Amino acid sequence: MSSIAPPVNHQIRLAARPVGLPKTTDWLHTSEPVPEPDEGGVLVQTLALSLDPAMRGWMNAGKSYIAPVGIGEVMRAGGVGRVIASRNARFQIGDRVSGALGVQDYATFSADALERNGLAKIDLRLGSLTQWLNVLGMPGMTGYFGLLEIGQPQVGETLVVSGAAGAVGQTVGQMGKIKGCKVVGIAGGAAKCEWVVKALGFDACIDYKAGPFAVRDGLKTHCPDGVDIYFDNVGGDILDTVLTRIRRRARIILCGAISQYNNTGAVQGPKNYLSLLVNRARMEGMVVFDYALRYPQAIAEMAAYLKEGRMHSREDVVQGLAQFPQALLTLFNGGNFGKLVLEVATA
Amino acid sequence: MSSIAPPVNHQIRLAARPVGLPKTTDWLHTSEPVPEPDEGGVLVQTLALSLDPAMRGWMNAGKSYIAPVGIGEVMRAGGVGRVIASRNARFQIGDRVSGALGVQDYATFSADALERNGLAKIDLRLGSLTQWLNVLGMPGMTGYFGLLEIGQPQVGETLVVSGAAGAVGQTVGQMGKIKGCKVVGIAGGAAKCEWVVKALGFDACIDYKAGPFAVRDGLKTHCPDGVDIYFDNVGGDILDTVLTRIRRRARIILCGAISQYNNTGAVQGPKNYLSLLVNRARMEGMVVFDYALRYPQAIAEMAAYLKEGRMHSREDVVQGLAQFPQALLTLFNGGNFGKLVLEVATA
Repeated sequence: MSSIAPPVNHQIRLAARPVGLPKTTDWLHTSEPVPEPDEGGVLVQTLALSLDPAMRGWMNAGKSYIAPVGIGEVMRAGGVGRVIASRNARFQIGDRVSGALGVQDYATFSADALERNGLAKIDLRLGSLTQWLNVLGMPGMTGYFGLLEIGQPQVGETLVVSGAAGAVGQTVGQMGKIKGCKVVGIAGGAAKCEWVVKALGFDACIDYKAGPFAVRDGLKTHCPDGVDIYFDNVGGDILDTVLTRIRRRARIILCGAISQYNNTGAVQGPKNYLSLLVNRARMEGMVVFDYALRYPQAIAEMAAYLKEGRMHSREDVVQGLAQFPQALLTLFNGGNFGKLVLEVATA
Repeated sequence: MSSIAPPVNHQIRLAARPVGLPKTTDWLHTSEPVPEPDEGGVLVQTLALSLDPAMRGWMNAGKSYIAPVGIGEVMRAGGVGRVIASRNARFQIGDRVSGALGVQDYATFSADALERNGLAKIDLRLGSLTQWLNVLGMPGMTGYFGLLEIGQPQVGETLVVSGAAGAVGQTVGQMGKIKGCKVVGIAGGAAKCEWVVKALGFDACIDYKAGPFAVRDGLKTHCPDGVDIYFDNVGGDILDTVLTRIRRRARIILCGAISQYNNTGAVQGPKNYLSLLVNRARMEGMVVFDYALRYPQAIAEMAAYLKEGRMHSREDVVQGLAQFPQALLTLFNGGNFGKLVLEVATA
């Protein structure tokens, strides 16, 4: 680091485990001097953070696919940043990196924390900073491996994806088109639906906010022969409605259930799950981290699609670290349009 | 047929679509002369019928894996019988056969109905008449293909099966042992649990009637490392409890949901289904008919296990066609102990 006064690290920490939607009082805003890295360590300035539905799960106590964020800890977040100090030969000052930076201005990693936090250099020739949080980041990897590995799409099959205008949904639908599927999105509002069809090339998109039977009727119209693959980001009533329309040997990829994450009572189980039995269909969960060794190959493939114009991305960028609590809530009311990104500093 | 007066065919027909548990008034008892078979046809005297939970589903209107039984039609039932008249070279008088005989004393098949009703000769050297409705019949085939094809059991894995003392459960658990799994049954009552362990060789059996937390506590005790495969015959609370104990990459075979078949409201969806996501697990439906071409090989294998004493079976035999409505109800209160069979005539 330079000899000028060390910068201040503003952080947002988890103050309490939320009941339902996270409230202002569930967060603690703190400041501390930025620690210099130890031998082998790296100091990263956060440029942008990924805001994801999964964050809500990380705030709950209890066993999941990843440990919960502890009370008083900096909130976990994936992000992209710039190396501003390094005592590790693999990272140079000025390198752009991605990893679990946390909701803070600066992240200091000791040597043994680099791998655990997934710190990796990113190449801005393959995609922009925000694309590295979207199609080239976790959401893109989730969509890519979830669709291809669990969904096993075949040419001519009908793929339905909920949260179609969201981060994962964008990738899923566009990958589905690349694989020769008929792709029908489900999204909230006419604007998102129009974008998904016109900009991303989906065959159709159902506006679930258009009325109580919009999804049911939309599936009848756009999937007259039924649904071969359903990529589920939302759970709840939409999952139950899709279950009534699946075809024989359908695959349902369980990626998320955003409609249920802020429940204060029990999760809504899919009452139509016996449609799986009748249709010899399966519902299978996926966690993107399982495919970490294959990210580089998938990123290269997606970057090529971006370059060729076969894949497009949209990010909804909110500015300022302090906006984190409010911005996160937009995920749960459908207020974001595209992958939600918090810009923390200018690149 | 001989020249003596034609026998009378007593039949039980579906009079109304039941709401909840089938009532006496949902059935119609009728009698008619037995029609002689046409050219190419066969007349079969029913000896024993298979009483199955799936029958409840056949009584409902609406699309399923098989058409509903029509109002006024003879109730569909699989059974075993004796050919008493034949105008088809493939069947001789005295042959023992299995097929969809229906709840009636005699079944007359035209030539084009033989295949549709699955009429096939059975070999009593391979197993008894009632075993042909159990381990060598539909329940056995369901357990065999469901476990092996969907469950993909590996040596050392932990398999849990509900309805363990029932027709499908018997086969599933014993096949699981043959495949080298640790097998834990779930059944209702101490007697069934004891039989499943002592006679069938399960490693343990949980009596779900022993208390409100019996399944939860039993799984903790008997599956301390979690559940790799769950063969579900019951749905409801037991499915939800097992979901809390599944291991990574667990497979849940959806074979039935007997706890839900007589609901007058919605089916109870598994509120813990997101455990599939966290654990990268899958839940998959199966319908035995899909494996029909492979029944002969499976029957040969199972018959060999019976002969070697590696597989045992238990049938709960109720006598008399007229007992059908009452006997069927025992399936839904757990009153039967073993595969429920209705003996219609003596062999």
